[in-house]
Amino acid sequence: MGRERVLTAEEEAVNELLMSAKAAEMAYGFETLDFPPSLNFMTVRHKIEASQVFKIIKQMPKGAVLHQHDTSMTSTKWVVEELTYWPDLYMCYSKEDFLLTMFFEHPDQSCSWRLVREVRASYPSAKEFDAFLYGHLSLFTDDPEAKYPNNDILWNYFVDSLTLMNDLVTYRPAWESFLYQGLKEFCNDNVLYLELRVRLPPLYELNGTHLTVEETMAVNNNTVHRFLNDHAHLYYGTRFIYSPSRKVDNATVEEYFQLMKELRALFPDLIAGFDIVGQESKGEPLKNLLEPLLKISAAGIPVFYHAGETAWMGLDPDENVIDALLLNTSRLGHGYAIVKHPVAKAFAKKKNIPLEVCPISNQVLQLVSDLRNHPAASLVAEGFPLVVSTDSAGMLGAQGLSYDFYEAFMALGGAKADLRFLKQLAINSIRYSSLDKAKKTKLMRQWTGKWKEFVASMLEQHN
Amino acid sequence: MGRERVLTAEEEAVNELLMSAKAAEMAYGFETLDFPPSLNFMTVRHKIEASQVFKIIKQMPKGAVLHQHDTSMTSTKWVVEELTYWPDLYMCYSKEDFLLTMFFEHPDQSCSWRLVREVRASYPSAKEFDAFLYGHLSLFTDDPEAKYPNNDILWNYFVDSLTLMNDLVTYRPAWESFLYQGLKEFCNDNVLYLELRVRLPPLYELNGTHLTVEETMAVNNNTVHRFLNDHAHLYYGTRFIYSPSRKVDNATVEEYFQLMKELRALFPDLIAGFDIVGQESKGEPLKNLLEPLLKISAAGIPVFYHAGETAWMGLDPDENVIDALLLNTSRLGHGYAIVKHPVAKAFAKKKNIPLEVCPISNQVLQLVSDLRNHPAASLVAEGFPLVVSTDSAGMLGAQGLSYDFYEAFMALGGAKADLRFLKQLAINSIRYSSLDKAKKTKLMRQWTGKWKEFVASMLEQHN
Repeated sequence: MGRERVLTAEEEAVNELLMSAKAAEMAYGFETLDFPPSLNFMTVRHKIEASQVFKIIKQMPKGAVLHQHDTSMTSTKWVVEELTYWPDLYMCYSKEDFLLTMFFEHPDQSCSWRLVREVRASYPSAKEFDAFLYGHLSLFTDDPEAKYPNNDILWNYFVDSLTLMNDLVTYRPAWESFLYQGLKEFCNDNVLYLELRVRLPPLYELNGTHLTVEETMAVNNNTVHRFLNDHAHLYYGTRFIYSPSRKVDNATVEEYFQLMKELRALFPDLIAGFDIVGQESKGEPLKNLLEPLLKISAAGIPVFYHAGETAWMGLDPDENVIDALLLNTSRLGHGYAIVKHPVAKAFAKKKNIPLEVCPISNQVLQLVSDLRNHPAASLVAEGFPLVVSTDSAGMLGAQGLSYDFYEAFMALGGAKADLRFLKQLAINSIRYSSLDKAKKTKLMRQWTGKWKEFVASMLEQHN
Repeated sequence: MGRERVLTAEEEAVNELLMSAKAAEMAYGFETLDFPPSLNFMTVRHKIEASQVFKIIKQMPKGAVLHQHDTSMTSTKWVVEELTYWPDLYMCYSKEDFLLTMFFEHPDQSCSWRLVREVRASYPSAKEFDAFLYGHLSLFTDDPEAKYPNNDILWNYFVDSLTLMNDLVTYRPAWESFLYQGLKEFCNDNVLYLELRVRLPPLYELNGTHLTVEETMAVNNNTVHRFLNDHAHLYYGTRFIYSPSRKVDNATVEEYFQLMKELRALFPDLIAGFDIVGQESKGEPLKNLLEPLLKISAAGIPVFYHAGETAWMGLDPDENVIDALLLNTSRLGHGYAIVKHPVAKAFAKKKNIPLEVCPISNQVLQLVSDLRNHPAASLVAEGFPLVVSTDSAGMLGAQGLSYDFYEAFMALGGAKADLRFLKQLAINSIRYSSLDKAKKTKLMRQWTGKWKEFVASMLEQHN
């Protein structure tokens, strides 16, 4: 990918620095088999952080993140260290022994709520309590094989973490801080633009009242604009892909459709399109929701379907790839299984429909253990359109896009992928965004400026 | 693969039986994630053996095995229970603490040799001693993750087992029994024809004298003919691909070339061609041995190179795929990495050069952990030419070809692959053999007869 690009003399010099670091790290990996992309991200994050290649990628303007979910965007560390120290946060265990949290003025009678502050004080140390909270709010663990013996067990933990996070961050002021902090983490990682998949759960106030979906969306709107105003030269903007659950019936998807139309009318700039989300092997395949989904496509609403996030072949989850394409999807969320459907693959290539490849998510969620075996490696070699994204950066223990770019660069591009590969990834992320032509041009111009600064800064550092 | 085939009414009836069993097993796997191809073969062999699909595949005439190495062909269980009970077998530990075995009339002074019979008697039970021997002679273990933390460590064990097996089975009468038994195991598994990769280490007699390579080859010749005479209606024949080590210099490959010419003159029917073997990341890449290898190709000697048995990309082992094709290889041994080289892939497809896909070997040797992620799944979907083979059946804990066919059927073909897929695999194994046209026709006729018997027998069993 990107091999037909011609680099400037300055870029060539940066490429030499980059490839010299990469060659050393590939050679070490080849010799010792201690090669981070072949091992579970959760066990080698510290090694990636020590990589020279990673350090260069961190400085690089990486364009856009096109596949990231709302409640898993912000680092769990920040959530624990900041949000859970707010007053008025309560916790309890449900009858089914699930940990619950909620902000209250006065806790209700639904559970034996205790102030988090008081529970924390009852622990031998705050650190110990925070580690306990972190364990419930993140998938990150030192021993993933022991904790997650299979994919369904892992998804159960994942859904529990997402649910717990949801109750914690949908307190309206918490959500404003969480969303702002998430954008900041991506912006700090030199990401200019985000398309967030949002489930839009209604936010709540301390007195227990709930905001409507429209009011919730207005909070989002205010927050992303406030962030943009605060970071005008560092950031381009944020859009939302409305992405409710796929574990529903046709009538519910019909309601999604009505809401989509309303939200698009209210926030035309902010709402990029539609998707349905959740574990594909447990939720409905697209073909079971065809009637309302066809209406959505017919209404000209851009769709960005999750499809084929699975290692199965010849079953519903992988065949979602075909249906997503037939439903006129603008991009394929994951599309991991597309290599097993050559006709769909050729169709997507011809129509220039890219895959949103999320290497770390695919590895942590146990689609593939060694990222050198990720099907995107062959797709990269064939010049198939794709972008690299994060999926659930915060909850997987990453921060920003650099970790996924590193994995893609080392494992999906192979030893010979160079600066042109990374540059192409950044350009693809803008090219395949939902923005209209004028806005893409504006974003591309902003990115080009940052890219030049990056090249200059790299050369300066090494002179 | 095979989807364009038209089945007879009888085959359709067998297909229904097969697919009904398969659908149940896929549904169970989808529901529980307890799906053998996604788990290390060594931990799920008993589950495969309990599978109805596997039981049908066992009865099926599977054509030919085109990728199997000599000293790993026969089940280690047989070696331990039969060969190591022979008199005159000695064992000792080398200075480097490697276990050695050797047959002697009078043991030499190179080591502190003890009779295996006596060592066995000194153990609490023969069973315990045999388990100890089995552990040294096979890769099979109940806990592969603990024993083999990475691919290099695993290869070290593998080479140790091969070395130990080599000393044990190159005693001339032991070799005759080992080779005969290996052929019997494949024949019992309804395999009609084998192309064995042989390193041709010189055999030895009890008095310590060594046979020449020509004499060794004559023993092979006699043994395979004896086996064929004993199993005329059940078996078609055996050929050898001379496959010495790739960890050598150009001068040695030049010697290989001279020996190849001599062996082809002496045993024209028996010698199919040439290959060089061993771990690709540790031995020489083809490009380093180009001068003598070009001579071999120029001499019109068929070559069957191991190439791309690796998850790396952009390094020597995966680029062997390109060089093997340029050296006019008749088939690609493994060719696992070919999906990362689309030009080489298109070239191989155009020239009809098949991959020799060995699923269990690739999994046990840690190229890929979940066979649904094996690149051959996408190749199958694309109709790329390939055969399925065993690599090292006996030493990996398999026996015959059925285990690998099962893995291919369930994981590489996906849920919808049916009897046509398996029939095509069998036909491919004949089509892509090294036999000339007349012999292929003869083998195909024999296989067709067996196939009809299989179809009739299946229908009889279920009436």
